[in-house]
Amino acid sequence: MEKTHIVKSYDEELTHLDSLIAEMGGRAETQLADAIDALMRSDIAAAERIREDDKRIDRMEEEIDAFTLRLLALRQPMAADLRAIVAALKASSDLERIGDFSKNSAKRVEALSKYPPLGGSLSSIARMSAVVQEMINNVLDAYVDRDADKADDVRARDEDVDTMYTSLFRELLTYMMENPANITPCTHLLFIAKNIERIGDHTTNVAEQVHFIVHGKRPAEKRAKGDRSASTVVGVGEA
Amino acid sequence: MEKTHIVKSYDEELTHLDSLIAEMGGRAETQLADAIDALMRSDIAAAERIREDDKRIDRMEEEIDAFTLRLLALRQPMAADLRAIVAALKASSDLERIGDFSKNSAKRVEALSKYPPLGGSLSSIARMSAVVQEMINNVLDAYVDRDADKADDVRARDEDVDTMYTSLFRELLTYMMENPANITPCTHLLFIAKNIERIGDHTTNVAEQVHFIVHGKRPAEKRAKGDRSASTVVGVGEA
Repeated sequence: MEKTHIVKSYDEELTHLDSLIAEMGGRAETQLADAIDALMRSDIAAAERIREDDKRIDRMEEEIDAFTLRLLALRQPMAADLRAIVAALKASSDLERIGDFSKNSAKRVEALSKYPPLGGSLSSIARMSAVVQEMINNVLDAYVDRDADKADDVRARDEDVDTMYTSLFRELLTYMMENPANITPCTHLLFIAKNIERIGDHTTNVAEQVHFIVHGKRPAEKRAKGDRSASTVVGVGEA
Repeated sequence: MEKTHIVKSYDEELTHLDSLIAEMGGRAETQLADAIDALMRSDIAAAERIREDDKRIDRMEEEIDAFTLRLLALRQPMAADLRAIVAALKASSDLERIGDFSKNSAKRVEALSKYPPLGGSLSSIARMSAVVQEMINNVLDAYVDRDADKADDVRARDEDVDTMYTSLFRELLTYMMENPANITPCTHLLFIAKNIERIGDHTTNVAEQVHFIVHGKRPAEKRAKGDRSASTVVGVGEA
């Protein structure tokens, strides 16, 4: 974190900006993976560390924003370089939110540790998170490689995440109806699932920034939405 | 929306950028107000219009981002002007999310219309939303006036929103435990309350951007957090 970067040329500065985004994104992905791991193992101490580590992600956003400001002031970038710098400013906000949603998920581990584990739902959450972690991983590769096709592919996969979330929404509401003792833990799991779904949205935003750097405009077609949970009604006795 | 802007000078362009942010923010605030109004009146047609109007907010983000890119390329801004342009890029993302959270709340009106209204909780949600709407309104004034004190005041008020949210969280979980028929509607209300709490966070981000434009750095002290819901456990029979 506290390395001194001896930067020599404009090209090196632009490469450094990419590496900052890749590092920040890598940390955000790790935060999500660690939060879900702490949830699966009901590890309160690990969850507490994730909350602490979120501050480092916040500081990285500030570092990236300060670095872009310096590049804009001193280098007066044009065309694709300018787009990369603007994209970095937008992407750093999205990655900060990914860290924040991971932290919020970690915060719920302690409340959940007071209840018997809901094994099936935990597995579904872990599967959903694995898909999103892979999306984050791929979008960061696409970012560094300026690979718009790979970014578009990440964007398309967000629909699967939405579908998984809608399915979890129904499942968790059904458990709540079966037994009032499930209401508190299922509510926390519902928010964790929603956090992962939102992380998918922010990953999609980063994918759109990659498309923008490469093509000079955002993707044209509207992304299909697989999240039907907002209109979902689960009746008592449906279980 | 489709007005032709005849822009003559650099100063006019910077003023135009502020007016775009103020307009986009005003629309986002209206979307939130309309979503809560549709919820209170169980007005499905109004909720549907809010979903449509969200596309205009998305287009405004693209317009602002394209305009800032043009300013950066052609005007090579420095110092406070450069900070204002970077802040506009960040703020447009936050305002887009405010529109998105409002749309997500509106989407839930139809599912909620199938249940008897939970009057007390609806009133609490409306009160919480009124506080956040006032925060959005004030932060836009602070933005246009470059009033960092006013922005810092908005930031401080987000703690009240978090406290209101935690209280609603307990209340809605208690209703769910009293009667399983309340589980679906209370879950949707819980997500609406959470959306408003998140809108408060994004409004706080905009407030921090105002502080940054004026002072050249982000606010130093960490904001106090009043949201204790993530660690909240509501026991059966507590009601």
